Amino acid sequence: VHEKGRNWGRLLSGLIAVNVIILGSALVSGSVFNKVAITPTHLQIFLTVLIILTTIWMLYYSAYTSREDHAVLYKDGHAGPIWLRGGLVLFGLCSLIMDVFKIANYVGYLHCESAVKIIFPSVQAVFMLVQTYFLWIHAKDCVQLQRNITRCGLMLTLSTNLMLWMTAVTEESLHQTVVPNTNHSVAPRTMAIKAGGGNSECECSHTACGIFEQAYYYLYPFNIEYSLFASAMAYVMWKNVGRLVDQHNHYPHLRFRLQDVLVGPALGLIVIVVGLATFVVYEVDVTAHDEGKRIRALTMHYITTLVVIILMSIATIAGCIIYRLDQRDHVSGKNPTRRLDVGLLCGASIGQFLICYFTVVAVVASGVMGHLSALNLVCSLFTIIQLGVQNVFIIEGLHREPFHETNDDSVFSNAVAVNSHESASHKPSDIIGETKSNIYVITDTTHNHGHTQAQPHQLTWKRRLLKEICAFLLLSNVTLWIIPAFGARPQFDDPIGVEIYNYNTWVAVVNIGLPFGIFYRMHSVASLFEVYLTS
Amino acid sequence: VHEKGRNWGRLLSGLIAVNVIILGSALVSGSVFNKVAITPTHLQIFLTVLIILTTIWMLYYSAYTSREDHAVLYKDGHAGPIWLRGGLVLFGLCSLIMDVFKIANYVGYLHCESAVKIIFPSVQAVFMLVQTYFLWIHAKDCVQLQRNITRCGLMLTLSTNLMLWMTAVTEESLHQTVVPNTNHSVAPRTMAIKAGGGNSECECSHTACGIFEQAYYYLYPFNIEYSLFASAMAYVMWKNVGRLVDQHNHYPHLRFRLQDVLVGPALGLIVIVVGLATFVVYEVDVTAHDEGKRIRALTMHYITTLVVIILMSIATIAGCIIYRLDQRDHVSGKNPTRRLDVGLLCGASIGQFLICYFTVVAVVASGVMGHLSALNLVCSLFTIIQLGVQNVFIIEGLHREPFHETNDDSVFSNAVAVNSHESASHKPSDIIGETKSNIYVITDTTHNHGHTQAQPHQLTWKRRLLKEICAFLLLSNVTLWIIPAFGARPQFDDPIGVEIYNYNTWVAVVNIGLPFGIFYRMHSVASLFEVYLTS
Repeated sequence: VHEKGRNWGRLLSGLIAVNVIILGSALVSGSVFNKVAITPTHLQIFLTVLIILTTIWMLYYSAYTSREDHAVLYKDGHAGPIWLRGGLVLFGLCSLIMDVFKIANYVGYLHCESAVKIIFPSVQAVFMLVQTYFLWIHAKDCVQLQRNITRCGLMLTLSTNLMLWMTAVTEESLHQTVVPNTNHSVAPRTMAIKAGGGNSECECSHTACGIFEQAYYYLYPFNIEYSLFASAMAYVMWKNVGRLVDQHNHYPHLRFRLQDVLVGPALGLIVIVVGLATFVVYEVDVTAHDEGKRIRALTMHYITTLVVIILMSIATIAGCIIYRLDQRDHVSGKNPTRRLDVGLLCGASIGQFLICYFTVVAVVASGVMGHLSALNLVCSLFTIIQLGVQNVFIIEGLHREPFHETNDDSVFSNAVAVNSHESASHKPSDIIGETKSNIYVITDTTHNHGHTQAQPHQLTWKRRLLKEICAFLLLSNVTLWIIPAFGARPQFDDPIGVEIYNYNTWVAVVNIGLPFGIFYRMHSVASLFEVYLTS
Repeated sequence: VHEKGRNWGRLLSGLIAVNVIILGSALVSGSVFNKVAITPTHLQIFLTVLIILTTIWMLYYSAYTSREDHAVLYKDGHAGPIWLRGGLVLFGLCSLIMDVFKIANYVGYLHCESAVKIIFPSVQAVFMLVQTYFLWIHAKDCVQLQRNITRCGLMLTLSTNLMLWMTAVTEESLHQTVVPNTNHSVAPRTMAIKAGGGNSECECSHTACGIFEQAYYYLYPFNIEYSLFASAMAYVMWKNVGRLVDQHNHYPHLRFRLQDVLVGPALGLIVIVVGLATFVVYEVDVTAHDEGKRIRALTMHYITTLVVIILMSIATIAGCIIYRLDQRDHVSGKNPTRRLDVGLLCGASIGQFLICYFTVVAVVASGVMGHLSALNLVCSLFTIIQLGVQNVFIIEGLHREPFHETNDDSVFSNAVAVNSHESASHKPSDIIGETKSNIYVITDTTHNHGHTQAQPHQLTWKRRLLKEICAFLLLSNVTLWIIPAFGARPQFDDPIGVEIYNYNTWVAVVNIGLPFGIFYRMHSVASLFEVYLTS
């Protein structure tokens, strides 16, 4: 009966999601290619209906679970980690400001356009407040009652967020495409401010309109990011509906201690400082309407990125080699949340792969002219390598048991006792690899708690090196997150992509790939922190 | 160790696939938008390298497994069913003919174009021969040795096939887009024959060129279908690497008997005959360059499809209701191949959903003018409903235990004995629903074999009705498979899609969606046959 209900609920909720998303994409495509037959208003009505339905369900769910005692018996400790919820709140805040700006902007056009346009951002603002609250409180729930309704509700939430993401990406891309294609030497985004707003005859009644319009287009990327975060969390909740979590399956609580490592964090901090400095200089110079300055800014940006990426690649490969040498056990047993986490990490990295490969093909096709192209090419190639090895490193790290302290020069005190322990917890083949352990360690393995305090001041070189590498990679990923998240778009400032591909295609690739890339960097930071703790 | 190896192999092969596919899509996009910098030759070189690598691996694999005894210990009985392999051979044959035509065509241009163009179809022909042989022989393998190499090889095969699919879809779409957009009233495909072949100055040296060119564009859809089939089979093989199949997990062999059902097959045969007749008349009339005939042909096509779809929907809903009334057990235990099968079925249905929703939006946006639009709209809406309920029906059917014969008017002969049996195999709640069973049935359930021969001439009405429904749905799906598979394209003959969306978008949607739709119908037929047997 349980199996049957689960299949049925999954199937039904899946069908709902497929129908909503495909109907939505048809509307979006229609509104892009035929502005007369399918106006943005039609699309907004569809989105408003979706948003209202989702909001009602979320309120119902919150009310229901707070009244019933047995609705949520288990919480999944791995779901909805703090970085995801924190990111959600941060991006939600920016999106809220964007909606306020939009409303303020439309108020200025009230005298000559319909009031319907104000409804959508208002509804969206309410939706974001409710959803952020909902996901903050309920992200870890493993719902046990009304499972099928909850599955459908969560799939509705997921598809609503995906639709909002799709609409935002499309609007952002169209907005950037308004630029006249003839003059690529001036940065496109500085010219493309006058796109939205309404038809050209209608004049805004207050003076702040231009500022609002300009401001809310800068906030679009945060809104895109918000939808991605909410989608990921809704998906994880959907997966967790009806799951019975084993309460004892938790990791031992590992303390965060920084005193053991030095080189990694120091190098990482240098990377952050250099990255931030480059970012600021880049942002100032690239908008300067001066061809020489623009090229200098791009060169500087590429060189900095290249150095960081190469350092990261070397560190990651070193980490992978240490894992090969290292004899730690792999975490046994299935962990659905861990698998989901890994899937999200790998999935998000596809966005970055996409941009890199499109850049490589574009640069090679254009014949690699000038040092800027060469830098761009090398940068993209190394990013591809870095993404690959970093995925391997993080996944390997997440699948290891927490580190057990070993003394390299100790021998067995009692071989028979060791063997009796072995038969209970290890396969015979493992003992050959662990001949250097002493008896205390093996007892430790059996109990499965990593007592890092047992010999606090004697980290082995492997363990220490792993911690250094994790710390360095973590801070470097933060740097690579900050640069695109706060608005650097070398993909548009460098004309190569636009020249080889059609403008629309390039804008679409970057606008789809980049938010996933940002998500990937944040996710990497969180995963690397976990790897740091277990190493 | 086993877990570690699996994760590592999956990760590595996944990375290979992601890299190949994304690099390939960048090349395809580049060659579409910038024919100067990235010529079709570049793309063909990339594909040739991929194809050669895959062919080498497949030959290596065949040689290796034939020499080693322990390479393949288990075969997965559910993988690579006969319809999939048969379809592969059929479509492979058509693709081979296409390649021969291509070579013959290029031979005519040898005097003025480079000989490189001949290499690609020749290599592709060899590849298809090797791959069809490979998949025919090895589709059921659960490889135990050299697992990581096999995983990588299979992912390479998968990505090669996806790249060939992507290239074929793009070429087909570009070929259809050559039509001048001004005149939609004449069927586009009849005008668009002069596209491929080469630059316009070069004249073909033999007279058959035109025929070859025309012929191989008619064979493109089969090539697209072939790549999809091969991808699906490679994916299933990849999933099966390292799997230890429980030999006892097989279904009891169920005999196919047609004598119990009558109405379903009869109705189904009528549907097939009517469908084929409509198809032939439609194909003749729609290419007749006569506006009146074209509209009549379309009207007839829509009415036939609509009637078939409505009958199918009613039958499917009746079947779902019977499942609700029916107390049969669900198949317990996990079955990865079954889950994969269901996933492929649902995934393939997305293609049809895509076309339907795009049509609905287009017709509604254009204001539903004339009876043709109305018919198109109703047809699409009912197809959406039919797809949804058919998915539910098939999945429910596949998850039921084979039917156990019950006598409706028997009572318990020994309630105590029944209860003792119950405690072993059923939960207490189930017994209430089964009060009409006699003791013989419950013993039967425990042994889990469906002895349909036990009371051969007394099918219950439920069982009989389910078989009738399955037979009818099966034959109707065959009809809906034949019509698009052999070339009917009402989506292009009816100008509505082209008018609302941009021409490129509509061609892309149809060319991506339709092959998946054809795959879906074939898959449905196979699944319905299985449901027929277990009912």
